Amino acid sequence: MNYDLLIQRVIVIDPSPEGIRVQAGQDILIQGPRIAAVQPTGQVDPAAAARVISGDGMVAMPGLINTHAHAAMVLFRGSAEDVPIEEWFNEYIWAMETNLTPEDIYWGTMLAAVEMIESGITAVADHYFEMDLVAEAFVAAGLRAHLAWAMFGQHPREELDRTAAFAARWHGAAEDRIRVWMGPHAPYTCPFEFLQEVAREARRLGLGVHIHVSETAGQVQASLERYGLTPIALLERAGLMEGQLLCAHAAHATPEEISLMAAHRVGVAHCPKTFLKLAAGIAPVITMRQAGIPVGLGTDGAASNNTLDLLEQMRLAALMQKHEHQDARALPLPEALTMATWDGARALGEEERLGRLAPGYLADLILVRLDGAHVQPVHRVEAALVYSVRASDVDTVIVNGKVLMEGRRLLTLNKAEILRQVQARADRLVQRAHGRRLQIYR
Amino acid sequence: MNYDLLIQRVIVIDPSPEGIRVQAGQDILIQGPRIAAVQPTGQVDPAAAARVISGDGMVAMPGLINTHAHAAMVLFRGSAEDVPIEEWFNEYIWAMETNLTPEDIYWGTMLAAVEMIESGITAVADHYFEMDLVAEAFVAAGLRAHLAWAMFGQHPREELDRTAAFAARWHGAAEDRIRVWMGPHAPYTCPFEFLQEVAREARRLGLGVHIHVSETAGQVQASLERYGLTPIALLERAGLMEGQLLCAHAAHATPEEISLMAAHRVGVAHCPKTFLKLAAGIAPVITMRQAGIPVGLGTDGAASNNTLDLLEQMRLAALMQKHEHQDARALPLPEALTMATWDGARALGEEERLGRLAPGYLADLILVRLDGAHVQPVHRVEAALVYSVRASDVDTVIVNGKVLMEGRRLLTLNKAEILRQVQARADRLVQRAHGRRLQIYR
Repeated sequence: MNYDLLIQRVIVIDPSPEGIRVQAGQDILIQGPRIAAVQPTGQVDPAAAARVISGDGMVAMPGLINTHAHAAMVLFRGSAEDVPIEEWFNEYIWAMETNLTPEDIYWGTMLAAVEMIESGITAVADHYFEMDLVAEAFVAAGLRAHLAWAMFGQHPREELDRTAAFAARWHGAAEDRIRVWMGPHAPYTCPFEFLQEVAREARRLGLGVHIHVSETAGQVQASLERYGLTPIALLERAGLMEGQLLCAHAAHATPEEISLMAAHRVGVAHCPKTFLKLAAGIAPVITMRQAGIPVGLGTDGAASNNTLDLLEQMRLAALMQKHEHQDARALPLPEALTMATWDGARALGEEERLGRLAPGYLADLILVRLDGAHVQPVHRVEAALVYSVRASDVDTVIVNGKVLMEGRRLLTLNKAEILRQVQARADRLVQRAHGRRLQIYR
Repeated sequence: MNYDLLIQRVIVIDPSPEGIRVQAGQDILIQGPRIAAVQPTGQVDPAAAARVISGDGMVAMPGLINTHAHAAMVLFRGSAEDVPIEEWFNEYIWAMETNLTPEDIYWGTMLAAVEMIESGITAVADHYFEMDLVAEAFVAAGLRAHLAWAMFGQHPREELDRTAAFAARWHGAAEDRIRVWMGPHAPYTCPFEFLQEVAREARRLGLGVHIHVSETAGQVQASLERYGLTPIALLERAGLMEGQLLCAHAAHATPEEISLMAAHRVGVAHCPKTFLKLAAGIAPVITMRQAGIPVGLGTDGAASNNTLDLLEQMRLAALMQKHEHQDARALPLPEALTMATWDGARALGEEERLGRLAPGYLADLILVRLDGAHVQPVHRVEAALVYSVRASDVDTVIVNGKVLMEGRRLLTLNKAEILRQVQARADRLVQRAHGRRLQIYR
């Protein structure tokens, strides 16, 4: 056998540097974890491939890259609704998170993995606790994961050592599907000196840093009052822009901060549904893109976002930029598709191997059905993907050359057992009468 | 048999006048076209029902009411993307619509009917052309439809006579599933005198009037310049508020116009996805609701909206009001669910028989699965429905007591044949080289 997998007769979407390329009637050849070739159908004998998948009536595109998530928070889905962000943190989330056991986080991550695979996500940047178990869950699922163990700087040495040990165990593990990042929570929760230590430690260990920043206008104001600096400028001052930095949200980035992020190749994770739902504001996505910042899309956690559906985030991102700029031409189809794929890879520093459907890239890709009544007729494939398809149209998911879902059948995970585990834990997890809190949001 | 249909062990959502009621463990009994009883499971012998459907793991709610659509425009889905509204009308839509034959409209409506049933819509207010064929399609599908034949006032007598004849044939037809409305296109396309004639004719025939109004800020300005009146005030001046009036969009309604609509019990159809996509602005939904205006949700046509998915409109409506008001408490879960159901019925003047899941109401209802990985765990059913479920979670659709879809299997329509018919027509319909136009948008 020359190839491990042949996908036949498919429409291929590739977010190339010259823009989105759409080519019908293609075969995709996969060898080990990589794409060997993308070429017009019929040039290779199907007998040369160990496995053949029909792409009839489907489009193949790079797997969706979720640049910011708290996977296990699916456990709190729908439990903190219609409340302002302060109340959401203090009265709900940070109270409920004290209920979590390591096993809860494992099973929550497993449920999130099912939801992400079923909606076409192939890589996720996850930011949470008990990350050894999170890594085990994602390895079992077959997903690619960039993992950051959340730190508040309450016990600096212990937190930094924990991440260093976690990185020693997991950075590059599972055929390099797992990468470790440092995860300081945010400039409004972590002391400045701790952020400086994180920056030094990140350089020493050669890790990137994944942090929340500038979520509300109030945070910007508070940072100015406390430090005389806006939050993203504070990250630069702490030395965090000297290495790879991924900023979740940056919804209230100032023009000066945008220049700073662009100059330091900082990535941004844009999570529009969470930000609409918590009424926190919408990031200046177009301005950031024009400055050259790679802006990927993220689902955030399901406690605020309610789904881990990157197609939904892509649609909202495009709709919201049109609305905010009052310009129907804003964030057109090719840019929305690029954000969900290659720009996500760029935000993670993975643009050399992820986010494109081209020879030499890792075989992280999905097949999406176009035959639904809600998608037909297809006058333009890009429009179908951005504005019509649903997560339920994702048919097949491949990561690192391995098929995780085919014909919507999960091949790596036992969904029934995962649902049973989660349901058995659900009621206990939302108890808040104990009065404990992980943190206080001010 | 005492009952035609028994739905067992289901969670029932009813938008009652006192707010959304959620009751688990219920049986729903249906007799002919109406709901006979909603009661705790087990009080009636299943043998007393001709047909039994299990509601295990599902929620039953009133069927979704689509208060503004152009069903057959699914034919143009994805063909006019990322363009401003003037260009959308003049260069695309009104050029492509000259290609439509009556048969095209019939098959387009059939495809729309499939999409709407598959996404849980049970009633639709449709505004288009060749409405005899549209009525035939909706009757065949088993849907409930309020139909308006679009008029521009170019040939006033002919257009009014056509609607009168259409109403004579169809108003109250198909067991009263079909109702006829008058359909003047908009105050910016129809002469004022024609709107006055429509108002007189509507009173004479006892029909409601369904019109587009106040879609853009530019339209408001143009109306002031032309008539010295804002567009909705102009409708009142024309006499259109003396009978039942349904205003699609009203995105730029002024405070005075909101008072006027409230005083005359005018209904509004809110279509957020179209309005975001065309960057036309978002209606003051909360202000209108507080004034007492029934604001329903609409999908508009798929040429702008790309889907006919009312769950998506409900989600966007709630997210957008939170964003516009910068208040996470705005448009909370119960209000969003009510907009999609009973408020839609109120906007159509159908609140006495539609939009609730209660004894005496028409048996237009849907069953929605809650067992998806993207919905679990369910801490709050209302949150699951507004922020997590997808159209693909709609399992069963019942209209007028008749099952149109069960276990996602369509029982009234031949989807394969409909898709074949639409695909055979698709390429011809988007030709624009002929230079013809139905209308000019200024």
